[in-house]
Amino acid sequence: MSKQVAVILSGCGVQDGSEIYETTLTLLRLDQLGIGYRCFAPDIEQHHVIDHRSGEVAEGESRNVLVESARLARGDIGSLEDLDAGEFDAVILPGGFGAAKNLSNFAEAGSEMELLDGLAEALASFHEVRKPIGLMCITPALVPRLLGPGIAVTIGHDPGVSGAISSMGGLHRSCSVEDIVVDFENRVVTTPAYMLASRISEAATGIFKLVDRIHELMDL
Amino acid sequence: MSKQVAVILSGCGVQDGSEIYETTLTLLRLDQLGIGYRCFAPDIEQHHVIDHRSGEVAEGESRNVLVESARLARGDIGSLEDLDAGEFDAVILPGGFGAAKNLSNFAEAGSEMELLDGLAEALASFHEVRKPIGLMCITPALVPRLLGPGIAVTIGHDPGVSGAISSMGGLHRSCSVEDIVVDFENRVVTTPAYMLASRISEAATGIFKLVDRIHELMDL
Repeated sequence: MSKQVAVILSGCGVQDGSEIYETTLTLLRLDQLGIGYRCFAPDIEQHHVIDHRSGEVAEGESRNVLVESARLARGDIGSLEDLDAGEFDAVILPGGFGAAKNLSNFAEAGSEMELLDGLAEALASFHEVRKPIGLMCITPALVPRLLGPGIAVTIGHDPGVSGAISSMGGLHRSCSVEDIVVDFENRVVTTPAYMLASRISEAATGIFKLVDRIHELMDL
Repeated sequence: MSKQVAVILSGCGVQDGSEIYETTLTLLRLDQLGIGYRCFAPDIEQHHVIDHRSGEVAEGESRNVLVESARLARGDIGSLEDLDAGEFDAVILPGGFGAAKNLSNFAEAGSEMELLDGLAEALASFHEVRKPIGLMCITPALVPRLLGPGIAVTIGHDPGVSGAISSMGGLHRSCSVEDIVVDFENRVVTTPAYMLASRISEAATGIFKLVDRIHELMDL
């Protein structure tokens, strides 16, 4: 029986959902390592819809996070409320603004942010039994609220975001795009990905390292 | 000056646009090889919108192919009508039903299909000067209309699609998911990708081979 990883998505597109390349590269590496995976997303309306060509809000348009995330999962996706940590060996959250707009309100509220109902409980069910948790791009900013204070993470070296992490009780470590930060005690692995990447191959290097380390931690 | 490749998209999502993993894996391999790229898509309404969770048509919803493709390009995309082959060394078309619904009407019309206005002209401007052309998944089915008869391509081994290619004057070669078919005379490289893939790593192997071969052909 192969290891299984849950991947939590927040839409489809960097500006209002999950970052597409980060998600695809995560799934590629899991599959290359022979690890099974299933995607999950919350069955809620998106915070908003961004026209990714213009960068502007598409006024009057609404989309569902689960339905849009299904594009990234080629249709094979579950509702976040059906995620049972007992069926998985680890969980990974790709980045994209959806994490800061749909899974939380970090994009608007910063260190005053609140999490989507049920998300902290879903993550806690992995954390409490020491199953590894991977986060990339902006999602490590959610860790102090998701998992509690004192956990080392990285979002690269953006002073505003790292400051917000610190003010919520988190520990931020600066990190280059092609590297990872590992909190061994908490089994939390993070990488900056598109917080820093200017090329897809840079993001891939860090994301592949993250998945490889998650794989190692599953057996410890 | 690095080589440059144009990538033609048809939306964002396998059922009504470009296949997301095929596109991402194409861009990853180009970047890993140090090849620059730019994405293009037609500024037209999608044939329809598919709810990728249910697989059903989302009645009453409409989306623009260029705007949705911008999600896959992280916003950096041009309109297909502005594609100047003189600025690029090769062109690649990822798959997804968007190729058969937005770039052509192959999904409905089969061998009686017609191409999107301007697409054949865009491809001809590469073909006439012997610049390599890569196509994957369902897009090789467009080759007889795009580039003319007698060009060897693969879509795997689906009898319906390969029969349609033959009836339009194309030459179909059976091929496994992890391999490619190369028509050296015409500099056309094709791979089955998600016509056959059951795992993302299988699709990656064929797509990486395709991009590697395109790279070699650019220097011949």
